Amino acid sequence: MPNPLAKPKLRKDLPAPSPWQGRRRPREQNALKREAVILAAARAFRARGYHKTSLDDLAAGLGVTKPTLYLYVPNKEAMLFECFKAGLAPIHTSLDESERAGGPARDRLFTFIRGYATAIVGDFGWCMLRAEDQHLGAALSRRIKLLKADIDKRMRALIDAGVADGSIRECDTRMTAFALAGALNWMGHWYREDASLNPQEIADRFIDVFNRGLRGRD
Amino acid sequence: MPNPLAKPKLRKDLPAPSPWQGRRRPREQNALKREAVILAAARAFRARGYHKTSLDDLAAGLGVTKPTLYLYVPNKEAMLFECFKAGLAPIHTSLDESERAGGPARDRLFTFIRGYATAIVGDFGWCMLRAEDQHLGAALSRRIKLLKADIDKRMRALIDAGVADGSIRECDTRMTAFALAGALNWMGHWYREDASLNPQEIADRFIDVFNRGLRGRD
Repeated sequence: MPNPLAKPKLRKDLPAPSPWQGRRRPREQNALKREAVILAAARAFRARGYHKTSLDDLAAGLGVTKPTLYLYVPNKEAMLFECFKAGLAPIHTSLDESERAGGPARDRLFTFIRGYATAIVGDFGWCMLRAEDQHLGAALSRRIKLLKADIDKRMRALIDAGVADGSIRECDTRMTAFALAGALNWMGHWYREDASLNPQEIADRFIDVFNRGLRGRD
Repeated sequence: MPNPLAKPKLRKDLPAPSPWQGRRRPREQNALKREAVILAAARAFRARGYHKTSLDDLAAGLGVTKPTLYLYVPNKEAMLFECFKAGLAPIHTSLDESERAGGPARDRLFTFIRGYATAIVGDFGWCMLRAEDQHLGAALSRRIKLLKADIDKRMRALIDAGVADGSIRECDTRMTAFALAGALNWMGHWYREDASLNPQEIADRFIDVFNRGLRGRD
């Protein structure tokens, strides 16, 4: 196994027909290549499973050498962690927006739910949901747990704010956040088999259930 | 690798200090041993992950030889499938009871939710949730999908019955079933880290949210 930290010394080590070659400046070009590598990894992990996907497979899929992949990440575990973080990014954006917005917190919670639904069925959703279960090393597992706990905390704060401003009734904030997260995360398991509704339409159905409840006449 | 179908010819091939030796009749004894093997496998898969657990690990954990395991299952994939089926059993029981019971379908749905919550955090919950993602062979994957689809169908039928008897308001039955299943299945991911509520108490919090909704004042 090559030293995972060894980097090719020359840029010409990159193969000529690379799909992400361009005329951009080196730093920008490097960022784009990195994104392409992480996206390809996320798709491969989702399609074949993390344990059944090797860096060799990824390199072959991208038409690059394995040392080229090592330019971006030191090993497969780090690759999964990068995919996990890429999955978090739109969720953080959506939380930031919901936290900054005005109006009743229930509306802001529902806006966040729409953003989350789109993120979870995206390319990085699988990695976001499954990274923690792939028995990565202790340090990465801890970072994943902390990053997930932060989302949970911010989601609960939105619910608490709704209870405080009266837009959400009194409820068990923690269990409500878990129920919402569960409904949304589960989309990552079933969504690809269903093309009849888009993520926004699904989120709206979920919001209807969570907003009004199921109770008919008593 | 030994022939997975080969069976030791003599009962004395079983090690003397086996934890499940007893004075029961052979058929009963065999069933108990089989259960012990499947339970040990489910716990190992959950603790270490499916791909990181070998039949050698399982045999060592049970204090038996690998050929002894082959008495019960032909390979590791079949072992996971047995764990999956063991996880389904209490869910089927709970569905059977809810379908047979009288009264408003909403109450019967909520009774089922309580049964499901207990099952999903049990020893076989992990295998039930994750079997489909372990990239088992096509035949087992298909059986898992069909068995899961059957639960979904029966859950939707309970919701439809509630809409028909008026105990559940008009809603998107399919998305409601997915939201409920998501909230419940997600327990399998977070529950072990939480000891403040038992599965019944969590189910009751979820039922409160799904029954009454979150809407405060508009």
